[in-house]
Amino acid sequence: MAQKPLILVTNDDGISAPGLRTLIKVMITLGDVVVVAPDSPQSGMGHAITLDSMLYAERVTLDDGPQKEYSCSGTPADCVKLAIREILDRRPDLCVSGINHGSNSSINVIYSGTMSAAIEAGIEGIPAIGFSLLDYAWSANFEACKSYVKTIAENALKHGLPNGVVLNVNIPNLTKKQIKGIKVCRQAKANWVEEFDKRKNPQGKDYYWLSGKFVNLDGGEDTDEWALENGYVSLVPIQFDLTAYHFIQNLNSWKLND
Amino acid sequence: MAQKPLILVTNDDGISAPGLRTLIKVMITLGDVVVVAPDSPQSGMGHAITLDSMLYAERVTLDDGPQKEYSCSGTPADCVKLAIREILDRRPDLCVSGINHGSNSSINVIYSGTMSAAIEAGIEGIPAIGFSLLDYAWSANFEACKSYVKTIAENALKHGLPNGVVLNVNIPNLTKKQIKGIKVCRQAKANWVEEFDKRKNPQGKDYYWLSGKFVNLDGGEDTDEWALENGYVSLVPIQFDLTAYHFIQNLNSWKLND
Repeated sequence: MAQKPLILVTNDDGISAPGLRTLIKVMITLGDVVVVAPDSPQSGMGHAITLDSMLYAERVTLDDGPQKEYSCSGTPADCVKLAIREILDRRPDLCVSGINHGSNSSINVIYSGTMSAAIEAGIEGIPAIGFSLLDYAWSANFEACKSYVKTIAENALKHGLPNGVVLNVNIPNLTKKQIKGIKVCRQAKANWVEEFDKRKNPQGKDYYWLSGKFVNLDGGEDTDEWALENGYVSLVPIQFDLTAYHFIQNLNSWKLND
Repeated sequence: MAQKPLILVTNDDGISAPGLRTLIKVMITLGDVVVVAPDSPQSGMGHAITLDSMLYAERVTLDDGPQKEYSCSGTPADCVKLAIREILDRRPDLCVSGINHGSNSSINVIYSGTMSAAIEAGIEGIPAIGFSLLDYAWSANFEACKSYVKTIAENALKHGLPNGVVLNVNIPNLTKKQIKGIKVCRQAKANWVEEFDKRKNPQGKDYYWLSGKFVNLDGGEDTDEWALENGYVSLVPIQFDLTAYHFIQNLNSWKLND
């Protein structure tokens, strides 16, 4: 019998997050699953890695599924590095991260621990997908996500992904019936307009809480924001070669070596 | 008299780092300088932002220069957000980050706090540059960096940068005489091959230290790694639209909606 595909599962909300538990349930129908996930929430960690302290990784059992699970003291990117170099006994065929509690569409990809785990696997040449549901609540309902997660993961296992490309999947917070399907998109131009909440501590010293409003600046109908607003699951291929090739020619006209 | 350009200066090694102090010295020759930098080192923080705790920002004086300085408890990306929304009284004409103690060339851009600060400013539509010297030592010699930092910053002030593009500058650890000039490059394909150092704590529990070897997988002579190995300052335009446009057509051939 052919060996089943090996699937590495991780996230940034922590090993007990309902989104991760859902992702495991789908992946065990597709292959052998090993989970290496942070022992506590790591949202907003971007592509942080742990350089100045040590990492723990402990074998844990959270349910009676067939997967092997490890709880790790590091960031999502640390989890992937540790899994590949130390924990797994063979190279994974796929790495999936999520399902994140909250959007990682458009510019959010930059801040996302979920996507940094997928990107880390991508750098290692492993096909990788980050999944996110547009609901920040711990009690979010992941039921409708399941079939989309499965379809996209099955396709990635079947077709593979070219070197340097990782998938960013966002799922609208709708019922299965309301969701219109999966749409391949580009990343929308959007940003966060921060509003800092300035307060004084009991000693009279100012401090700030970061909060803000998400603003979509992109009127295109081929973007992830458009897809999500219109009831589609958005699927954006992303890359970690950040070179802005279109500007190289222009930059070569600057007087840099006179 | 025309208003001098306003330059926001930040970094990820912390406000007292010699690389930042050098960057300030160069920038005060080009404009009005406001420094908003982390109060402690933030290397390897990637594009982390602080969501679950508050931020402090305190006016400090570290030398007798004309710049205004603020020490902030947050990450490099937090510093830029707080500067733009709360601290600065007008929109900066340029944001510079660094000079980092250590390389941010090729794939290191992904893990870099220095570059995340520049990218954050770029997202806000502010021309932004990250500078790094290929020497991790606190006692690194930044003398040879000065003229290159000045030339590139002057050019960015003069020409501006298109929306969505940020500059990643790396400087070889050589004398002024040895450096051959500035070279516009693309990001090399490279990665880190981690070697985890596995140890036991006094209670017998395993733990790991992350370390590794940088491997350049890219034989091209138009890359930042090639430039640096051959005595040039590397200048890579980078973008934060991560869409892998070249793979969209292929992805649309997957059976996603059957």
